[in-house]
Amino acid sequence: MKRYAVIVAGGQGVRMGADRPKQFLEVGGKPILRHTIERFLAFDPTIEIIVVLPAAQKEVWRDYCRGNNFLERYSMVSGGITRFHSVQNALKYVGDEGVVAVHDGVRPLVRRDLLERTFEAALRWPAVVPAVPVVESLRRLDGEENSVPVRRDGMMLVQTPQIFEAGVLKNAYQQAFSTAYTDDASVVEASGVAVHVIPGDRINLKITTPEDLQLAEGLLTLFSF
Amino acid sequence: MKRYAVIVAGGQGVRMGADRPKQFLEVGGKPILRHTIERFLAFDPTIEIIVVLPAAQKEVWRDYCRGNNFLERYSMVSGGITRFHSVQNALKYVGDEGVVAVHDGVRPLVRRDLLERTFEAALRWPAVVPAVPVVESLRRLDGEENSVPVRRDGMMLVQTPQIFEAGVLKNAYQQAFSTAYTDDASVVEASGVAVHVIPGDRINLKITTPEDLQLAEGLLTLFSF
Repeated sequence: MKRYAVIVAGGQGVRMGADRPKQFLEVGGKPILRHTIERFLAFDPTIEIIVVLPAAQKEVWRDYCRGNNFLERYSMVSGGITRFHSVQNALKYVGDEGVVAVHDGVRPLVRRDLLERTFEAALRWPAVVPAVPVVESLRRLDGEENSVPVRRDGMMLVQTPQIFEAGVLKNAYQQAFSTAYTDDASVVEASGVAVHVIPGDRINLKITTPEDLQLAEGLLTLFSF
Repeated sequence: MKRYAVIVAGGQGVRMGADRPKQFLEVGGKPILRHTIERFLAFDPTIEIIVVLPAAQKEVWRDYCRGNNFLERYSMVSGGITRFHSVQNALKYVGDEGVVAVHDGVRPLVRRDLLERTFEAALRWPAVVPAVPVVESLRRLDGEENSVPVRRDGMMLVQTPQIFEAGVLKNAYQQAFSTAYTDDASVVEASGVAVHVIPGDRINLKITTPEDLQLAEGLLTLFSF
C-alpha cells in the first residue's frame, strides 16, 4: 500500500525567543525538522514525504539541506495561512490511493513503534489518531482572572501522526475552512468519517517552549528512535 | 508566615507493574517520595511537612528512612479511601494560621522556582494553582469506540503544589465528599473561594507510567532542582 507522510512545519513563529522558527532549532546537533523527516525515512525508505514550510523559509531549508548533506528525497510545498490551508496545499501532491500520515514537524521524538502501530491500524480504520490520557486536572481559563474546572474522565491529548485513507482525507479537505478544526482528525470527522483512537506515546513530545527543547535534547539521548 | 506542605502519596497502586507503589520506586538512586520531600525541605528548612501514606505502607517507609539515613523532620498520616479523605486526614495536623501547599508525592521534579512563585502568589490570593496550557488537540473517549473533539482554547493542565490559606483549605475540607473533586482547587472552589491560576512548569511531571519513570530519570540529570 502506497504511503505518504505530510510533515507540517508551517510555523513562522519565533515565540521561543530564538532567531529561527522552532522547526529549524537544533536538538542533538540537528534541526528538529531533520529528525522528524529521518524518523519517517528510517521507518519506510519508500514513503513519499511532503514537507510543508512557510514560503519564506523554503530557501533557508534548501540551503541547510545542501550544506549538510541532507539531500533526502522529499517534496516541499508552501504553507498556507492556517494549518488547514497548509495541509490542503500538501494534499495536491497526494494520489487517491494509499494512506496519508499527517505529522507535526515539531514532533521529532516519534518512535518507530508508534509509526508501526499507527500505520498498522490504518489498514483497519479509515482515520486513526494516537492519543494519551490526561493525568492532570483540567481547568479552562475564562478571561484573565477566572477559570472553571473541566471534567477529566475519558479526556485524551491527541498526538500525531494521524493517518487516513488518502481518499477520505482529500475529500475532507474539500470542505470549507472552519476555526473549529484543531487537527486533521476534526476535519475528517466533520466530513462524516469516524475517527479511531489508538494509544499514543508520552515521549512523542510536541516542541513548543524552550523547556521542551531542553527536554527533547535529553530524550534523544535516553530513548532509541 | 507559617508554611505547611501536605505531600499526598496515598497510592497503593502497582499499575506500573512494579513490586511497590509508585511513590517508592527509585529514580536517580532514591525513592520518588524522598526526592519530593527533599525539594520542600531545600526550599524552606522550617516548613512543616505532612506525608500521607497508605496505612499499610507507613512501616515500609519508616524502614526505608531508618535504613537510609533519611530521618528528616516530617509527620506521617494514613491515607483515606480517596485523595479527598487523605488530605482531610492530613489537615488535622495543620493549624488555622499560615499557608498550606498540597503536593502530589509523585511529582519529584518540582523546581525551586515554581515553589517560590506559588508561595509568593499565596501571599496575594487565598487559593493558587500552577497550570500549563494544553498544546495538543483534546478528545474525549465516549465508550470503547467513540470519541468527540473538545475545544482546547483556554484549557490548562493543573499541577501541584496548590497553595491555600490554612483556614480556607480546612474550611473547604469540612464539606461532604463529592466525586466531582479532582484536586484541592476544586474542593476549595466548591466552598465559594475563587482559585487563582499561575504559570506552572512543564518539567513538573506527574509520574504515572513506566515511561514517565524513565523520563524523570533523565530529567533529574538534565535540570537543577
